[in-house]
Amino acid sequence: MAATSQANIEGAGGSVGIVVPRALEITEPLTLDCGRTLPQHTLMLETYGRLNVARSNAILICHALSGDHHAAGIYAADDRKPGWWDSAIGPGKPIDTDRFFVVALNNLGGCRGSTGPTTINPETGQAWGPDFPIVTVRDWVRSQALVADALGIDCWAAVVGGSLGGMQVMQWAIDCPTRLRHALVIAAAPRASAQNIAFNEIARQAIISDPDFHEGRYAEHGTKPSRGLKLARMLGHITYLSDEAMRARFGRLLRGGDGRFSFNYDVEFEVESYLRYQGQSFVDRFDANTYLLMTKAIDYFDPARDHGDDLAAAFAQARAKFLVVAFDADWRFSPSRSREIVNALVVADRDVSYALIDSPLGHDDFLMPLPDYHKVLRGYLSRVADEVSA
Amino acid sequence: MAATSQANIEGAGGSVGIVVPRALEITEPLTLDCGRTLPQHTLMLETYGRLNVARSNAILICHALSGDHHAAGIYAADDRKPGWWDSAIGPGKPIDTDRFFVVALNNLGGCRGSTGPTTINPETGQAWGPDFPIVTVRDWVRSQALVADALGIDCWAAVVGGSLGGMQVMQWAIDCPTRLRHALVIAAAPRASAQNIAFNEIARQAIISDPDFHEGRYAEHGTKPSRGLKLARMLGHITYLSDEAMRARFGRLLRGGDGRFSFNYDVEFEVESYLRYQGQSFVDRFDANTYLLMTKAIDYFDPARDHGDDLAAAFAQARAKFLVVAFDADWRFSPSRSREIVNALVVADRDVSYALIDSPLGHDDFLMPLPDYHKVLRGYLSRVADEVSA
Repeated sequence: MAATSQANIEGAGGSVGIVVPRALEITEPLTLDCGRTLPQHTLMLETYGRLNVARSNAILICHALSGDHHAAGIYAADDRKPGWWDSAIGPGKPIDTDRFFVVALNNLGGCRGSTGPTTINPETGQAWGPDFPIVTVRDWVRSQALVADALGIDCWAAVVGGSLGGMQVMQWAIDCPTRLRHALVIAAAPRASAQNIAFNEIARQAIISDPDFHEGRYAEHGTKPSRGLKLARMLGHITYLSDEAMRARFGRLLRGGDGRFSFNYDVEFEVESYLRYQGQSFVDRFDANTYLLMTKAIDYFDPARDHGDDLAAAFAQARAKFLVVAFDADWRFSPSRSREIVNALVVADRDVSYALIDSPLGHDDFLMPLPDYHKVLRGYLSRVADEVSA
Repeated sequence: MAATSQANIEGAGGSVGIVVPRALEITEPLTLDCGRTLPQHTLMLETYGRLNVARSNAILICHALSGDHHAAGIYAADDRKPGWWDSAIGPGKPIDTDRFFVVALNNLGGCRGSTGPTTINPETGQAWGPDFPIVTVRDWVRSQALVADALGIDCWAAVVGGSLGGMQVMQWAIDCPTRLRHALVIAAAPRASAQNIAFNEIARQAIISDPDFHEGRYAEHGTKPSRGLKLARMLGHITYLSDEAMRARFGRLLRGGDGRFSFNYDVEFEVESYLRYQGQSFVDRFDANTYLLMTKAIDYFDPARDHGDDLAAAFAQARAKFLVVAFDADWRFSPSRSREIVNALVVADRDVSYALIDSPLGHDDFLMPLPDYHKVLRGYLSRVADEVSA
């Protein structure tokens, strides 16, 4: 991926610069889909750009499985790793911080500072661990709505998200129809397929069956289920790239220079090296209990379920205008899944635009600065900015 | 799958009845691709039908990743589980035992009685375990050629196999061009793609990282890497069914009767139950060291490699006539992989027929009695039988 040069072709824009995350205390009780109530919770968030006087130019960014509140900018002048969607968020970028006030948060149940398995349960004084409830996409929307209240935002100019983030966007449009003008649903699906659930289940079983999991109480045992979490992440990466992208990137290249097979089980093909590296680096930065509940949130997401399995009926109550974006080589949530969303929106007589992007990588492309993709985002959001006088 | 009724539509044929496996001792030394030499080895095999006087009507069945020598028939009158390809092999069936002498064996390195990790290494008096060499598809063909010698078969009427079995068929045609008249390559690929290797690698890592693996010496520790082997098999099953087939079979059905989510990590969706069952039953019947070496044999298979990455050049030395069969919903070894084989054979000026079968399941369909599939096998092999006066 020549990401930089592609970004330049499209007009890269600048960086939001050094950002400081903050913790937002939500003191309003939150009743979850599982029936339990959190009397209070904390969410980590970052904001970029300035809220206008009319408070009409705010954009909410919803993150995917392993994302967090650090969507753009850097933490120090020598920080070489910007936020996970820095290519799209910044001054002059598609999500233009010269015009929008952008809010990114770490979802409830996350492991980057928001209330979740790794934070302290005030009732016990211990980390929640596996006692933290399994939250749903609907719960996240409820929690994010409380964030909007706290920030004084009655109505988002747009709610934007890719993958599991796109599921949150749909749920926003259904559950809080008057609180967003635009819904940008990127590389998502209206619900997980049996194959999606199968991948998630194997990832969960890898974690749960790791002897270091200790029924989720690994922190108390001074360990963590590294083997299982590593396998789970390796498995995820298979679904983030298309077969063709893997072929183009790794082919059957061998790590060793002499081109001979090793006849052992050490790392041998380049693709093995890539997966092991991705798996290991994930173990160093992510929590297994959070991974479990995030995958379960994907499996549970199914807005049609409450409407007789009729997605159009679910969308009938939405008022937002939709942009649905799919990537042609994405096989995790393929374009046909995005078309299900689009078709249901059309049936529900909603305003929807659909963009199918030529995609070199597959699902991972929703994070990439592909020129056609960024042109679509830029064009759409430029109109939104005009609309809200941002 | 209404397998029985479909088989009836096509004309099911009968059973070969009760069969008795036997152990064939190969006393000829076998030098392997890894450089090591086995002074002798034993292969378990079954035969069905009768070898004709001209010894021209023999068919070799090559098995896939988890297959063995029990391809057809039953072991006792009350045995409810026939061999793994019983739908295709028997009197009046596509591989017609009234006309052909059919040989099925458990490959070298297997775990059903053939010399492999679970058998005794004569040099040490202990089970081979992880000291058993990683064998290749080429090694298997060498070993199978010694079986042909032992049975007095100079030339197979056909060598037949699906998936990894199809890879052996191609290697036979390349390495022993005068020893087979027909090569039936079913649901195979000319080599593993990066994605295929990625799936195999995660399966291997699941096994190897299981604390009960003990570097392959689990038998000595009185244990086995059940968790890892279960995960490996669950992962395999994802690739055996298409997304559509999983949707049709499981959808988002819940196990519980009340249609409510459990908000825990117990088995919940039907597809989870299916995968856990498949994984567990595999652990009870398969050896982890064998699984490791079988997946490595897939990854190493690459006949073009010795011919400047030119598959047509590899096939140039073949003399057999080919039937290549692919299944349209197969995403493990998709039809485009079969077309690579067909195209290379055409370029090499070989005789090749290609059949693409409408497929309800995906890769697993190579084991199923689909009417169109069995008609193709029956038609092709009927001509072969006439040719060899069987």
